[in-house]
Amino acid sequence: MKRLSAGFLPSIALDTDGGVPMCEQLSEWFRRAIMDGRLQPGQRVPSTRGLAKELRISRIPVLSAYEQLYAEGYLETFVGAGTCVARSILGDALKPAHVTVRASRRSSGQGAPRRLSQRVAVLRTPPQTWANNHGAFRVGLPAIDHFPIAAWSKLVHRHAHRPPIGHMVYGTPMGHLPLREAIAEYLGTVRAVRCDASQILITTGSQHGLQICAHALLEAKDRVWMEDPGYPGARQAFRTVGAQIVPVPVDDEGLNVDEGMRLGRNARAVYISPSHQFPLGVTMSASRRMQVLNWAARTGAWIIEDDYDSEYRFGGRPLASLQGMDADDRVIYLGTFSKVMFPALRVGYVVIPKDLVAAFAIVRDAFDTFSSTLYQAALCDFIRDGHFARHIRRMRALYQERRNALLEAIDQVKDGKLEVIGTNAGMQLTALLPPGVNDVALSIETAKLGISTRPLSICYAAPPPRGGVILGYPGASVPEIQDGVRKLRSCL
Amino acid sequence: MKRLSAGFLPSIALDTDGGVPMCEQLSEWFRRAIMDGRLQPGQRVPSTRGLAKELRISRIPVLSAYEQLYAEGYLETFVGAGTCVARSILGDALKPAHVTVRASRRSSGQGAPRRLSQRVAVLRTPPQTWANNHGAFRVGLPAIDHFPIAAWSKLVHRHAHRPPIGHMVYGTPMGHLPLREAIAEYLGTVRAVRCDASQILITTGSQHGLQICAHALLEAKDRVWMEDPGYPGARQAFRTVGAQIVPVPVDDEGLNVDEGMRLGRNARAVYISPSHQFPLGVTMSASRRMQVLNWAARTGAWIIEDDYDSEYRFGGRPLASLQGMDADDRVIYLGTFSKVMFPALRVGYVVIPKDLVAAFAIVRDAFDTFSSTLYQAALCDFIRDGHFARHIRRMRALYQERRNALLEAIDQVKDGKLEVIGTNAGMQLTALLPPGVNDVALSIETAKLGISTRPLSICYAAPPPRGGVILGYPGASVPEIQDGVRKLRSCL
Repeated sequence: MKRLSAGFLPSIALDTDGGVPMCEQLSEWFRRAIMDGRLQPGQRVPSTRGLAKELRISRIPVLSAYEQLYAEGYLETFVGAGTCVARSILGDALKPAHVTVRASRRSSGQGAPRRLSQRVAVLRTPPQTWANNHGAFRVGLPAIDHFPIAAWSKLVHRHAHRPPIGHMVYGTPMGHLPLREAIAEYLGTVRAVRCDASQILITTGSQHGLQICAHALLEAKDRVWMEDPGYPGARQAFRTVGAQIVPVPVDDEGLNVDEGMRLGRNARAVYISPSHQFPLGVTMSASRRMQVLNWAARTGAWIIEDDYDSEYRFGGRPLASLQGMDADDRVIYLGTFSKVMFPALRVGYVVIPKDLVAAFAIVRDAFDTFSSTLYQAALCDFIRDGHFARHIRRMRALYQERRNALLEAIDQVKDGKLEVIGTNAGMQLTALLPPGVNDVALSIETAKLGISTRPLSICYAAPPPRGGVILGYPGASVPEIQDGVRKLRSCL
Repeated sequence: MKRLSAGFLPSIALDTDGGVPMCEQLSEWFRRAIMDGRLQPGQRVPSTRGLAKELRISRIPVLSAYEQLYAEGYLETFVGAGTCVARSILGDALKPAHVTVRASRRSSGQGAPRRLSQRVAVLRTPPQTWANNHGAFRVGLPAIDHFPIAAWSKLVHRHAHRPPIGHMVYGTPMGHLPLREAIAEYLGTVRAVRCDASQILITTGSQHGLQICAHALLEAKDRVWMEDPGYPGARQAFRTVGAQIVPVPVDDEGLNVDEGMRLGRNARAVYISPSHQFPLGVTMSASRRMQVLNWAARTGAWIIEDDYDSEYRFGGRPLASLQGMDADDRVIYLGTFSKVMFPALRVGYVVIPKDLVAAFAIVRDAFDTFSSTLYQAALCDFIRDGHFARHIRRMRALYQERRNALLEAIDQVKDGKLEVIGTNAGMQLTALLPPGVNDVALSIETAKLGISTRPLSICYAAPPPRGGVILGYPGASVPEIQDGVRKLRSCL
């Protein structure tokens, strides 16, 4: 053991401006010196008294630093032999030369591979610059400025102020029971969903619900029918588990079940939005509904029904859910509050057939344990106190007005370059473009002007014959909508 | 087309108590009648006037019901021919007989199979009744009643009251930037983690972070070293993606890296809790830390460092993170606020090597889009205003007191039946049981007395030679701890 020479010490550059405590600077210096080989295993270090003297600092930080380094296993002490760098730190484990070589090799791209799962490549999409702003036509964005924030924040405060212990500790994977009861009641009345609270799983939004479905129901390579065009988020969920997606065309009756049977034999599941197809806005016809229910019952497939924006229907009440027609418990029903309340709420739900509840709870528990309780409790009161129904009613009128303004503004252009479809319900419509116009390029252009239009083609499995832009109207005022259409038109 | 006979109508049992609107009862009746074949495609239905008269109700609800059924595609209208059941509902699609047979077959177990993913079976665990109460020794439960709820709810209210629009709309997958900045600063100072805000991903807790790691880094069949005994939640995350778990023994220096290399060649990743191993409480030695870092750099494996309860260390400051020693950016560092704040908060974080940030953001976006913004904003202020550091300091003293009370209570039993390990840090310790005592049975017994002890054996891949119970102490007062030990002892 050699004594640490005094010449060695100056390289401990202690910073005396008080930012980092002295003892921390010291222990960090020792760690680095040991790691990069300047201090060798078994090498003796100065006594705390000696080091404090050399550094002209109090002995206290030196003592703390040594104690810390000892606790971490960097230093060891022998009776009568002072303190030295732990001999349990094998030279092999340190390999300082190796570390240096590695660092430089890595910067030149020659280090060990940095392998990610194939999933990442499968899920990667081109940058979607149109999603970077919340300007006119942002899809899925409600009229935030019309949200009854005073009533809502009062409820949040009620629950945040003096929460019962039960709202702060671990909750159950299925969610806060009073909210589940309120949702079951709401869905039964408004959507003809047949369920009780035991079947409701609270999620952090419909994407989360789709992932839980995918993980509970599907194996890698399993075939899933997917509406084409359809909701890209659902495609992402199925890709996450390595499922094989079978695009099934959508016509004016919704998903073409005959085509599904022809294209995707032995499919394990189908994803559909029967009330208001995304993005074409079609309502699935009664005969197609029965056909898909019978197909599922016959083949043992699951139906994932996404009822994402069924609250808004202009003329006629919302259509009944497919789930309510299902005699074989094949439908898993998904909904969200992101669109009726506000996106940053992160509360959605899944209605699960009774015999599948345990499986979904297992997956949810493994996924992320449970949902934050505060918002669940506040939302429950928001529904029970009638704010929710009132807000939907008000928004239905407002969104209809905004939709009409959008239709009118498009109509005024009168050059037939935009053909509007899917206008009877929901929170968006689709404007088809003249053949040959690239909708992705168009959306990138409009994003530069601060408006957010989603290209229709990204909802298709293969480039469609005719592009389009999906236009959300709830989040923009009438003047913003008129301005948005002018800007959109100028990019064409 | 035959006219609907009057004799047919009485089976429309209208409920006049006002619970369900008349028009809804009517449309529901028609849907069912069409679905179960009582009304056939092409069959004529009464005029609205006629039906209203027969039922002795106003014509308005009948009109609405018909309109609804028409919109849903159940009815169609022909000029001069009145209204009939839509002929597009093919007899084949309906198959009422089939529906009936299916329903009865299913109840006798002969319906189409109800297949779940294999994942569900892999993730299923025996019921853990000890997790159903929040009594003494519940693992992971902080001292909820000492949480500064007044300060916290004030911050929540500040952000809930008049949130900027930006806090209500869609956020980014990585999280709320000011919070990420606060966390990066905190981790740099306290845990010697080297990162900036761009590397911080906000999660809904450490389980969520583990899943994102597993999905971003691992393929099915990939080998992962897992501490044995180790944290069951991590095992669940790796199982979710079908990874093959290689249990690697833990000794008094932490995970045995040599054994890992012997047992699990070509492993893609290792999961470790080096600061305070769960559940044995060991601190990983410096030589093992270097060994595992070098192994990872040499083989291209990833290190998932779970620093779940590093805030509490009794005697000596918290140990530096492994992440801070890593020269090859192989460490993904996980932390959570569930244990320092309260579990129902659902905010955690992952620190990601820079070149992996994009991949993690892709997976997180596909998983569940982003985290609720309110709590992120409130937590950011809670850290910035100094409440967080103050709370940790206060809890450190309190938990040490509670730990001491637990040790003393166990010591007073003085029969050597409980051997305590892992007492220097964190929020739990482990009491080893005499050989031959079944710890799962013991935990089930203690749960009946309202105390929650977690069996050590569930943290092992194979039944260990000696069982134990993991005892959390922060959540119980000193008298509750003393009472809990008496009850535990009485079950032995």
